[in-house]
Amino acid sequence: MNATPLRALLEELAKGDCTPEGAFEKLCTLPFSEAAQTLADTHRAIRVGLPEIIFGRHKTAQQVIEAMDALQKAHGHALATHVSPEMAVDIQKRFPDGRHDQLSSLFSLGRMEPATTPGIVAVVCAGTSDIPVAEEAAQTLEFAGRKVSRVRDVGVAGLHRLLAKLDVLRESGVIIAIAGMEGALPGVIGGLVSQPVIAVPTSVGYGANFGGVSALLTMLNACSSGIGVVNIDNGFGAAVLALRILAASETRKN
Amino acid sequence: MNATPLRALLEELAKGDCTPEGAFEKLCTLPFSEAAQTLADTHRAIRVGLPEIIFGRHKTAQQVIEAMDALQKAHGHALATHVSPEMAVDIQKRFPDGRHDQLSSLFSLGRMEPATTPGIVAVVCAGTSDIPVAEEAAQTLEFAGRKVSRVRDVGVAGLHRLLAKLDVLRESGVIIAIAGMEGALPGVIGGLVSQPVIAVPTSVGYGANFGGVSALLTMLNACSSGIGVVNIDNGFGAAVLALRILAASETRKN
Amino acid sequence: MNATPLRALLEELAKGDCTPEGAFEKLCTLPFSEAAQTLADTHRAIRVGLPEIIFGRHKTAQQVIEAMDALQKAHGHALATHVSPEMAVDIQKRFPDGRHDQLSSLFSLGRMEPATTPGIVAVVCAGTSDIPVAEEAAQTLEFAGRKVSRVRDVGVAGLHRLLAKLDVLRESGVIIAIAGMEGALPGVIGGLVSQPVIAVPTSVGYGANFGGVSALLTMLNACSSGIGVVNIDNGFGAAVLALRILAASETRKN
Amino acid sequence: MNATPLRALLEELAKGDCTPEGAFEKLCTLPFSEAAQTLADTHRAIRVGLPEIIFGRHKTAQQVIEAMDALQKAHGHALATHVSPEMAVDIQKRFPDGRHDQLSSLFSLGRMEPATTPGIVAVVCAGTSDIPVAEEAAQTLEFAGRKVSRVRDVGVAGLHRLLAKLDVLRESGVIIAIAGMEGALPGVIGGLVSQPVIAVPTSVGYGANFGGVSALLTMLNACSSGIGVVNIDNGFGAAVLALRILAASETRKN
Amino acid sequence: MNATPLRALLEELAKGDCTPEGAFEKLCTLPFSEAAQTLADTHRAIRVGLPEIIFGRHKTAQQVIEAMDALQKAHGHALATHVSPEMAVDIQKRFPDGRHDQLSSLFSLGRMEPATTPGIVAVVCAGTSDIPVAEEAAQTLEFAGRKVSRVRDVGVAGLHRLLAKLDVLRESGVIIAIAGMEGALPGVIGGLVSQPVIAVPTSVGYGANFGGVSALLTMLNACSSGIGVVNIDNGFGAAVLALRILAASETRKN
Amino acid sequence: MNATPLRALLEELAKGDCTPEGAFEKLCTLPFSEAAQTLADTHRAIRVGLPEIIFGRHKTAQQVIEAMDALQKAHGHALATHVSPEMAVDIQKRFPDGRHDQLSSLFSLGRMEPATTPGIVAVVCAGTSDIPVAEEAAQTLEFAGRKVSRVRDVGVAGLHRLLAKLDVLRESGVIIAIAGMEGALPGVIGGLVSQPVIAVPTSVGYGANFGGVSALLTMLNACSSGIGVVNIDNGFGAAVLALRILAASETRKN
Amino acid sequence: MNATPLRALLEELAKGDCTPEGAFEKLCTLPFSEAAQTLADTHRAIRVGLPEIIFGRHKTAQQVIEAMDALQKAHGHALATHVSPEMAVDIQKRFPDGRHDQLSSLFSLGRMEPATTPGIVAVVCAGTSDIPVAEEAAQTLEFAGRKVSRVRDVGVAGLHRLLAKLDVLRESGVIIAIAGMEGALPGVIGGLVSQPVIAVPTSVGYGANFGGVSALLTMLNACSSGIGVVNIDNGFGAAVLALRILAASETRKN
Amino acid sequence: MNATPLRALLEELAKGDCTPEGAFEKLCTLPFSEAAQTLADTHRAIRVGLPEIIFGRHKTAQQVIEAMDALQKAHGHALATHVSPEMAVDIQKRFPDGRHDQLSSLFSLGRMEPATTPGIVAVVCAGTSDIPVAEEAAQTLEFAGRKVSRVRDVGVAGLHRLLAKLDVLRESGVIIAIAGMEGALPGVIGGLVSQPVIAVPTSVGYGANFGGVSALLTMLNACSSGIGVVNIDNGFGAAVLALRILAASETRKN
Repeated sequence: MNATPLRALLEELAKGDCTPEGAFEKLCTLPFSEAAQTLADTHRAIRVGLPEIIFGRHKTAQQVIEAMDALQKAHGHALATHVSPEMAVDIQKRFPDGRHDQLSSLFSLGRMEPATTPGIVAVVCAGTSDIPVAEEAAQTLEFAGRKVSRVRDVGVAGLHRLLAKLDVLRESGVIIAIAGMEGALPGVIGGLVSQPVIAVPTSVGYGANFGGVSALLTMLNACSSGIGVVNIDNGFGAAVLALRILAASETRKN
Repeated sequence: MNATPLRALLEELAKGDCTPEGAFEKLCTLPFSEAAQTLADTHRAIRVGLPEIIFGRHKTAQQVIEAMDALQKAHGHALATHVSPEMAVDIQKRFPDGRHDQLSSLFSLGRMEPATTPGIVAVVCAGTSDIPVAEEAAQTLEFAGRKVSRVRDVGVAGLHRLLAKLDVLRESGVIIAIAGMEGALPGVIGGLVSQPVIAVPTSVGYGANFGGVSALLTMLNACSSGIGVVNIDNGFGAAVLALRILAASETRKN
Repeated sequence: MNATPLRALLEELAKGDCTPEGAFEKLCTLPFSEAAQTLADTHRAIRVGLPEIIFGRHKTAQQVIEAMDALQKAHGHALATHVSPEMAVDIQKRFPDGRHDQLSSLFSLGRMEPATTPGIVAVVCAGTSDIPVAEEAAQTLEFAGRKVSRVRDVGVAGLHRLLAKLDVLRESGVIIAIAGMEGALPGVIGGLVSQPVIAVPTSVGYGANFGGVSALLTMLNACSSGIGVVNIDNGFGAAVLALRILAASETRKN
Repeated sequence: MNATPLRALLEELAKGDCTPEGAFEKLCTLPFSEAAQTLADTHRAIRVGLPEIIFGRHKTAQQVIEAMDALQKAHGHALATHVSPEMAVDIQKRFPDGRHDQLSSLFSLGRMEPATTPGIVAVVCAGTSDIPVAEEAAQTLEFAGRKVSRVRDVGVAGLHRLLAKLDVLRESGVIIAIAGMEGALPGVIGGLVSQPVIAVPTSVGYGANFGGVSALLTMLNACSSGIGVVNIDNGFGAAVLALRILAASETRKN
Repeated sequence: MNATPLRALLEELAKGDCTPEGAFEKLCTLPFSEAAQTLADTHRAIRVGLPEIIFGRHKTAQQVIEAMDALQKAHGHALATHVSPEMAVDIQKRFPDGRHDQLSSLFSLGRMEPATTPGIVAVVCAGTSDIPVAEEAAQTLEFAGRKVSRVRDVGVAGLHRLLAKLDVLRESGVIIAIAGMEGALPGVIGGLVSQPVIAVPTSVGYGANFGGVSALLTMLNACSSGIGVVNIDNGFGAAVLALRILAASETRKN
Repeated sequence: MNATPLRALLEELAKGDCTPEGAFEKLCTLPFSEAAQTLADTHRAIRVGLPEIIFGRHKTAQQVIEAMDALQKAHGHALATHVSPEMAVDIQKRFPDGRHDQLSSLFSLGRMEPATTPGIVAVVCAGTSDIPVAEEAAQTLEFAGRKVSRVRDVGVAGLHRLLAKLDVLRESGVIIAIAGMEGALPGVIGGLVSQPVIAVPTSVGYGANFGGVSALLTMLNACSSGIGVVNIDNGFGAAVLALRILAASETRKN
Repeated sequence: MNATPLRALLEELAKGDCTPEGAFEKLCTLPFSEAAQTLADTHRAIRVGLPEIIFGRHKTAQQVIEAMDALQKAHGHALATHVSPEMAVDIQKRFPDGRHDQLSSLFSLGRMEPATTPGIVAVVCAGTSDIPVAEEAAQTLEFAGRKVSRVRDVGVAGLHRLLAKLDVLRESGVIIAIAGMEGALPGVIGGLVSQPVIAVPTSVGYGANFGGVSALLTMLNACSSGIGVVNIDNGFGAAVLALRILAASETRKN
Repeated sequence: MNATPLRALLEELAKGDCTPEGAFEKLCTLPFSEAAQTLADTHRAIRVGLPEIIFGRHKTAQQVIEAMDALQKAHGHALATHVSPEMAVDIQKRFPDGRHDQLSSLFSLGRMEPATTPGIVAVVCAGTSDIPVAEEAAQTLEFAGRKVSRVRDVGVAGLHRLLAKLDVLRESGVIIAIAGMEGALPGVIGGLVSQPVIAVPTSVGYGANFGGVSALLTMLNACSSGIGVVNIDNGFGAAVLALRILAASETRKN
């Protein structure tokens, strides 16, 4: 549909209604809407792993509702992050079948087809206070049809609890490691396993934690190489990176 | 070899030279060296993708030489990062067959077997000043037997150069996107492709760049989700994360 | 009126009621009130583009009312920024004809004459969460009699949407580019157009966004040269810079 | 030349060698190199005001020489910034007609045509230590064919020197205000004139100056609205913004 | 009274009830309470200019009441800073004659004797939003019996207003200059007058103001030498420094 | 109980039901749960000084209740920190015998046996606003059966009050020194006594205090060597360090 | 001399060569050079305490020489700060009678008349490493004709050394307290004396000292009120503030 | 000896040469030198564990030599830290028997008596680059007569190496844990042992390590409670804290 002007132009040219030179000039004088069209088409392909997601913070309930409506119509399902309990009440009225999860602050309408390929994501968190961020990651992955292994309360101050879960970590395809305060968990895990480790610093802590900066710096400076860090409290972003990793390998396999 | 004490204990027990209870107590009183043993054994398995690498900065040439010697003996090849030209002279004397690359500051002895599985890593950098970091990543990957596509000088201030290279990006399995100054490249790439994107901020810039902080923050705050950030100038770490991603998917495939 | 003492002195001198030397000494002993007078006169001329605006934050409703009253009497119109809904209620009581816009937090009484010269300002924002800042800029410009093109939701994670709007950008005289989170929009625009670009970082985001610092640093470090940055969330300041640019060129033209 | 593939395709279509649908598909399967082509063409137009400039820092003399060579061939002139005295020696050998200015660290080959339109840029600096940054701005403008008024040593600690130069400021079309330490100059100027003010913080100072951060923050927080700030020590960027402002108004005029 | 144990010891010694050696040992074994005694005595002398003041923030109303009670008994008057309206209600109940000033958040009981020596303190602030901090300074000075000249709304964006008040500044003995946002006022004043200037940054502003940091840094980096900076929003501290300056010169005079 | 699998394996081996080699392999294939077991056993021993404590912040009342329940069953007593008054109401319902202290925000069930060894901890704080942090430390120590000397209001601005308490400090085994604002107290104490000094910065202050950063930096830079700093407001952590110090010396003694 | 145009105008008017209205208009059309003139005249008066000083850092030897030459001609003496040993060699050649002090990095030509009024400044420093900053302050004061008491090595880690010098502090009119590392000295002194205290943080220290930030924050947050802080390492600025304090009180006295 | 004036006064009084009142007044008029005396006496007692140490950085060789000379005369031994190789050459000339250790940058003359009490300090470091800081700590302890267990290269990225050394840690009285980069080592150790843990962040690392800040924050935020942190790279300070801990327990024991 959007491609109409380009097609029209090509047909005009094929019919001899314009010269190649004239067509070329038209393409050059209006190039960017065409470029944009092409990009948009391509863009859709990118989203195979995950359709566009609504970031609920800084938005009104009405804005989220409109966006969910559009996504549901296009894909049959929709997901919004950072939906507060107050906002959820309004959204629920419009989408009675929707589901709001207080722990993760996600609001979902339906979910994607389960992946037919293997690839479990281990979502590991250091303390119980990190669970909301962990659930944002885990439930985003589940919405996208992925299997998740949850591992909780394995902070490095109690190393035995982490070591007891190593087999779970080793059976996963990607590990999302979530920690606040000192944020040492991803670095320790990175030294124990060969999987890609996605590190999520959380704002859990106080004082010289500076809203998650201490954990963020720890993760960026981890001695174990091969750890990719996302923004503070960004469970959703970690899930998307995990999805990218799984999707890329699946594409490659075939 | 290291397992000897444990084996000895088990054999003692099998022979009836000690009771199960006595063996249990011995295991408990000396548990950690055993735990360490076991971990060390496992540890080796982790390194399949990449044997231990020597971080050259803060070390003396002598320390690097000793470490390379040990690694070469164990694996037949060795790699050191952050080797300055001065340090390289001394190392070269000891390892005349070694190779020092000034651009990447890597010193390598031999290299690993080429991977038999597919999976190209695109190493993309915004400006020519980011090339040293890009080469640290690219040559580490090549040392580890991986294929690399280099894409250079595609900063977001000249978007057409980036768009002209999109097919290269789309053929890769993982993308390492490297940028200093404003650091917007990984976020823009993340919006154009579905591959996992590893973002490397560099310290290129001046003033309010603060030694790479501006690029680091940009990458952590990228609107495109699914971008994993490593430390400033850490091309090596990005390469290891790419290796982890490729290795994990290869394991999963079989 | 204020000039009275100076005129009086000159007349005294003209009448011979004092000597030149005496007049000189008087001028020197009381110089600053005179300097101030002169400056104040000149000062008024500066404000051609925009009469004094009331910054509502940190003020009481009563203080804003008094200031609006004075401005309205002097100019026939008045504008206050950062007026909260609560404060607006009180101000509205006093100025029933005034208009409060919740999105931009502006309270306006009347508006300035439309400019007779051309010069559209494109107000471009990356995400819907940046709209309040964008509207502060856009409506300030409209209050000052300028035409505005609004371009929304063209963040760099969806490049095609931005490219589709390039013609709008190219038809403008000045571009105000507004973005939170990674803040890459102004730099990308700066690489695509030749207009002056005014960059406004917003505090939209979380975690390592640090209340807008990430966007601010990105903009200061933009690889595209020729981008002027204003304070975080300062849509008003961006509008005034746009007005200065338009006004200066109009002056020069004649 | 670059347009060849696109033209070839269009001619093929005109000749009936392919169907419109086939041509459309080709455009879609290879879209980005075409998009890039188009962007590149457009891009050149952007540079009317100033051809691409070489940022000398972080580059080798050889890299700068190659870039200057290419630019000179394309435009007949070339400019490199941040060229150290050592680097200049090497570049001079290759371009004996080139000119290195130690104060501004610019290396120039020829210069652009003088602008035929009016529009002087006032380059104002607070202290003599800010002169290198001021000269980077001023000489970049002069390279681009613009007239510059230099105003020096008018820091706010000696207000009378600034007030004595107000007429120079008022005759300019754009003002570049440069200051280190407390950085108050642009804000004070902004309160005295109606011109657009481009503020350049410099790293001049010590202690709690933090390499220019104090001046940067002062400028971003200036009470005088309508001040656009560039990066610390970025005289070149300020010059380009001034060029954009002058160019945009000249375009609009006709 | 507190000196009793020391006096007792000396009398014991005088009476021959102990030997010098025994007295010496006693002094050495309990030396610090004696040292403390002496210091406490001396300490009182220090407070000539201003008795101990109660810092109300972080305290309960009850704690403030107890402290005021003690001070009133000792001195006949008392002053508490940072007293919120809520806390003031409780304190007022206990001290019906006390006075709470909402602007300055001071609660005072009586006041000190007016100083018989000259020495006016000019309390100058840049914007109306800085008035609470200015009043904390001014009213503390008035409580201590000093005369104050208030100068308001003389920010550097409207230089003429400041210049019009220079005579007031020049007639003062000390100047307290208060400003938020860019904080340039003290530096400009320091260039215009020879008085000691006490600079108070305020937290007025937003964005890159960082709660007063921008103003603080500006003041620390002021090009005008001879400016003493106190903590952000610390009007009280500025008043005490002014009192110290006035008191010291008065002592010296006699 | 947890040790069952290991014991079972050893008994199997003793009975000849498996070979030493088979047992070895089993140990190696499942090593980490065993390692974890062993660590867990050892771990308990670590806690002699203080059983696990519940950090109440970021937890729900229900989560705290469950944790207290478990700890009480295991040890006969339990302690939770950072319990707000609201949360305390819910916890109290479940544990009517529990005790909530508003000052320290601790909720305790019973307490540990008093230590039979000597070793008083002096808990010293600079101002009355630091008392909540001091009480968190002091009451944690008392819960753990230790004796505490409280010293209050001995900030360095009134040195005589500190000197008067030196004997109390010198009689203690460990000193916890707590201060906000400038945070100089621990450094001054460190110069006066030979005891280990644990420094606790508090967030008391405002402006350039930055939530305790000023005190934190002061303590880390103390000229008196031998001062160990804990996180801002971390009275509990200081108490645990004091317990470690006392416990270690008691162990050593015997 | 500079006043000529103004005088000429007044004489013209007195002679009847122009009307008062004409004179008034002339004053208004050329107001700023006049304002500047007046300010400049006034300005000189400000400098009674200290003629303009040359800040040597960021300047070339030649620039310093020219400035000294001008100052010497105007005043008979001159002072430059931050003169490195290398720069001093060049300056000495031109001014063989000049004196360079390596400790303070001051270069002086002659010195001002000794003050006839009392008023000693105590320059107190915490450690021997702070001496260069202390000498910059002390020798600037001596250059300006003031008496200085030097007190050294009285850091708060050795309180007895400070207490032993209290009488020196109490005999001074102003105290300059200089400290690096923890920077607690000014706050402790402020609690012991009633004099105005000027605090100078130094960059002495390492690690979390951050180039003097720790000392700076300590001083800004000092519990002792009435302490004015200058920039890190700014001994000269402290001296000028001391001169302002002494000068102001002397003016007031007469 | 220093006590002479005090003794003299007491003897005078005992002899009746003055009245108790006169003696009291003398004590009060000169109190601080006496207070200082007493403090100084007491002070010496504090140093039992470690005589005063010379901090070599920021000092000249001559200043260090003088200080060492004084200390050697007083105690028979002396220690200087941060002695560079260049400085060491000069010091060695004066003290041919002294010993400079390049690794730790310590210069020592003799050493203290070995402690007769038990108490080993484990000095543990994460990487070989942390060894200089570790040796500063270890050799300071050995100079003070203490026994040290060195544990190296046990960073958390290779957990098995740490676990293998747990018995060494458990046999120590105090643990000094040293780490750069992510700095997770002390927190992990704190979870494994009950000893007091002194954490030393080092500046080893790059990028977002910020000269040791990342390690510092990690340690302050460690989940394992009871960790005392010292300044970045401050091995000496850690040693002194260990000495204080050992000394205090030894005192208590007897």
